[in-house]
Amino acid sequence: MSREEQLVRLGYPLDRIPLPGAIYRPVVVHGSTAYVSGCVPFDGPGNLVSVGKVGRDVTLEDAQKAAALCAANVLRLVRQEIGSLDRVVRMLRVGGYVNSTEEFSDQHLVINGASELFAQVLGVEAGAHARTALGLAQLPLGSSVEVDAILEIRGS
Amino acid sequence: MSREEQLVRLGYPLDRIPLPGAIYRPVVVHGSTAYVSGCVPFDGPGNLVSVGKVGRDVTLEDAQKAAALCAANVLRLVRQEIGSLDRVVRMLRVGGYVNSTEEFSDQHLVINGASELFAQVLGVEAGAHARTALGLAQLPLGSSVEVDAILEIRGS
Amino acid sequence: MSREEQLVRLGYPLDRIPLPGAIYRPVVVHGSTAYVSGCVPFDGPGNLVSVGKVGRDVTLEDAQKAAALCAANVLRLVRQEIGSLDRVVRMLRVGGYVNSTEEFSDQHLVINGASELFAQVLGVEAGAHARTALGLAQLPLGSSVEVDAILEIRGS
Repeated sequence: MSREEQLVRLGYPLDRIPLPGAIYRPVVVHGSTAYVSGCVPFDGPGNLVSVGKVGRDVTLEDAQKAAALCAANVLRLVRQEIGSLDRVVRMLRVGGYVNSTEEFSDQHLVINGASELFAQVLGVEAGAHARTALGLAQLPLGSSVEVDAILEIRGS
Repeated sequence: MSREEQLVRLGYPLDRIPLPGAIYRPVVVHGSTAYVSGCVPFDGPGNLVSVGKVGRDVTLEDAQKAAALCAANVLRLVRQEIGSLDRVVRMLRVGGYVNSTEEFSDQHLVINGASELFAQVLGVEAGAHARTALGLAQLPLGSSVEVDAILEIRGS
Repeated sequence: MSREEQLVRLGYPLDRIPLPGAIYRPVVVHGSTAYVSGCVPFDGPGNLVSVGKVGRDVTLEDAQKAAALCAANVLRLVRQEIGSLDRVVRMLRVGGYVNSTEEFSDQHLVINGASELFAQVLGVEAGAHARTALGLAQLPLGSSVEVDAILEIRGS
C-alpha cells in the first residue's frame, strides 16, 4: 500500500487540503530539506474542527485527534508540493503547539497524536523525528492544536 | 533599487539595528542556511516600541507594524552578518510569536505584517516562506511581537 | 579537558540522561545538521527538578539553573546519539521556552542559563548560537523551562 493510500485509509482523503494563506507558502524546499508551515486542524478548506483550550474546552482524546489531523495536513501539503510522499526520506523535526490552560501539562500526550500519524503513514523509521511540544496561550483562529515540521526529501 | 534601498525607503534605516545579547549571535550561518535569532520591535538600540498583549494593550494594526519592524530587524541583522541582502536567495521559514491574551486569535493577521515586509524588500519569490504563527503568554521585555527566521543564502 | 569531562565537572554526569519518549527520537541527524528534541530539566530518568511558572513558583535564579540543566540534557542526548561531543562543530539555533506568568518578561535572562552552559562546555565559538526565547502558557509535565537545539556536526 502506498503512503498516500495509507493516509486515505486512516481517514484523511488527499483532497481535503487546507487553503494556504496568500502571503506565505505551505512548503518551502531547500536542497533535501522541506520546511512545512504550521498546520491547524482544518478538515478541508474553512472547516476548522477543533477550537479552544485543551484541558477546558477540548478533551485530551479530542486534542490527540486534532493533532493527528494537523499531521495529516502536513503530509497533504508535502504531497501537493513535491508530488508524492514516496519522496519523503524521513521526518526530521516536528513542532507541536497546544492551546493550553495554565493547568494543562499533557502537551506531550496531545502531540503523540501527530507523532503516531507520521509513523502510521511513513513507517516507524521514516516517521520518527525530533520533537518539541509546547503549551501556548492561544493559536490562530482559536485552534486547539498546531503542528509544523521539517522533513528530508529526495530528488524527484 | 537595491534591497537595502527598498528597506530604507519603507522606513527602516539600516543603522537602527538592535544590539545583540552578549551571549548569543544574531545570525549563525551553516553552508547556505542562515539561522536568525528572535527579533523584537527595537527601533534602534534600547528603543523597544511595542510592548504588551495584542488584543488588550496593543491594537491589531499596531501589532502588524511591530511585526514588520521585527522583520526589518531580521533583515538588518542578516545584512550586517553577510554584507548584502543580495546574497539572500530566499526566506525559508519564519516563526511569528505574538504576545496574546487568551481571547486574541488573529496571530496570523499580526504576522502578515512581517510576511509582507519580507515580500516588499526581497520580492514575492525570494520573500515567500513557510510560516508558523503562535500566541505566547509573554515575550522577552514584554514585547508585543517576536519574529525569527531561517534563510537560504549564496556565497559572497 | 574533553568536552565530556567539562560537562561532568560542571555537575552534569553523562549517565543522568533523560529517557526518550517511545514515539519520537531524542536526536535526528540529516547530513551535518542534528535536530535535538525539546529537553526539560530532568536530572536522570523521571526526576524532573524544576516545575511551575517562573515569576511565581520558580525564581529567576532557579529557572536559570533549570535552563542550564536542559542544555546539559541537549548535550547528553547529542553525545549518546553521535558518540562524542568532539563531533559538534557548533551550535546553530537554540529555542528557549519558559513557563511564564503573564507578568514575567525576563525569558531572555532565564535562557542565558542555557546559552552559558553551551559556551562553558563547547567553548565560546562552538557554543555560540542564534536564539529565540519565548514565554509559554504551560510546558509538558509542568516544567519551568524547555530547550531544543539545532547543531552542526562533523562525520565520525
